[in-house]
Amino acid sequence: MTPTAPATSVGSRALPHPAREEIRLEGVLHALSDPLRLQIVRELAADGDELSCSHFCLPVTKSTSTHHFRVLRENGVVRQVYRGTAKMNGLRRDDLDDLFPGLLDSVLAAADRQAARPGNS
Amino acid sequence: MTPTAPATSVGSRALPHPAREEIRLEGVLHALSDPLRLQIVRELAADGDELSCSHFCLPVTKSTSTHHFRVLRENGVVRQVYRGTAKMNGLRRDDLDDLFPGLLDSVLAAADRQAARPGNS
Repeated sequence: MTPTAPATSVGSRALPHPAREEIRLEGVLHALSDPLRLQIVRELAADGDELSCSHFCLPVTKSTSTHHFRVLRENGVVRQVYRGTAKMNGLRRDDLDDLFPGLLDSVLAAADRQAARPGNS
Repeated sequence: MTPTAPATSVGSRALPHPAREEIRLEGVLHALSDPLRLQIVRELAADGDELSCSHFCLPVTKSTSTHHFRVLRENGVVRQVYRGTAKMNGLRRDDLDDLFPGLLDSVLAAADRQAARPGNS
């Protein structure tokens, strides 16, 4: 028998993610259709690295914040992994660019344009 | 006094639409995040002209179909106008391309790629 304890141990803290081929366009668009989730994705794209959940200053409760990150993860937009006591978030840019070339960049560009409109934050 | 009857008469059948500057990216993405609504938009884009609601063969009730068209209209993705007894739908491509250059095309291209995946309709 091969030892399974390490894998089980890792698995107990691993969060479920869709495989690349399971990611659906409708789910990605849904994940991006919320102002806070779009803001999270913009910050991840601008940073280009993993960021902890606590990095984001979201004007919502902890449980609402957790919900938004889960929607992003379950729809294949971000990958969430535990590193020590922190839950880190990374944009799944490679997967998204491979599945839907140009989509993420066009959404990010559109978000930039909208933010630059007079009267918008 | 100027005669107002004609305008009022037209107005009573006119449906509310957001002005171009009122269209929000999040609303557009939400409108496109449903499989049936995405299918409607793909057909409108492929046809390039106005299509009546009855043109679309959607596997849902009339009221659900009406709901989907309303979501598309209220988020600035389609323009709905009565022409005689038909409610006609046209993609607001000019408005969307002006606000968010490349966004609609990238979503349509992504939808084409997804539809071409093995096992997808």
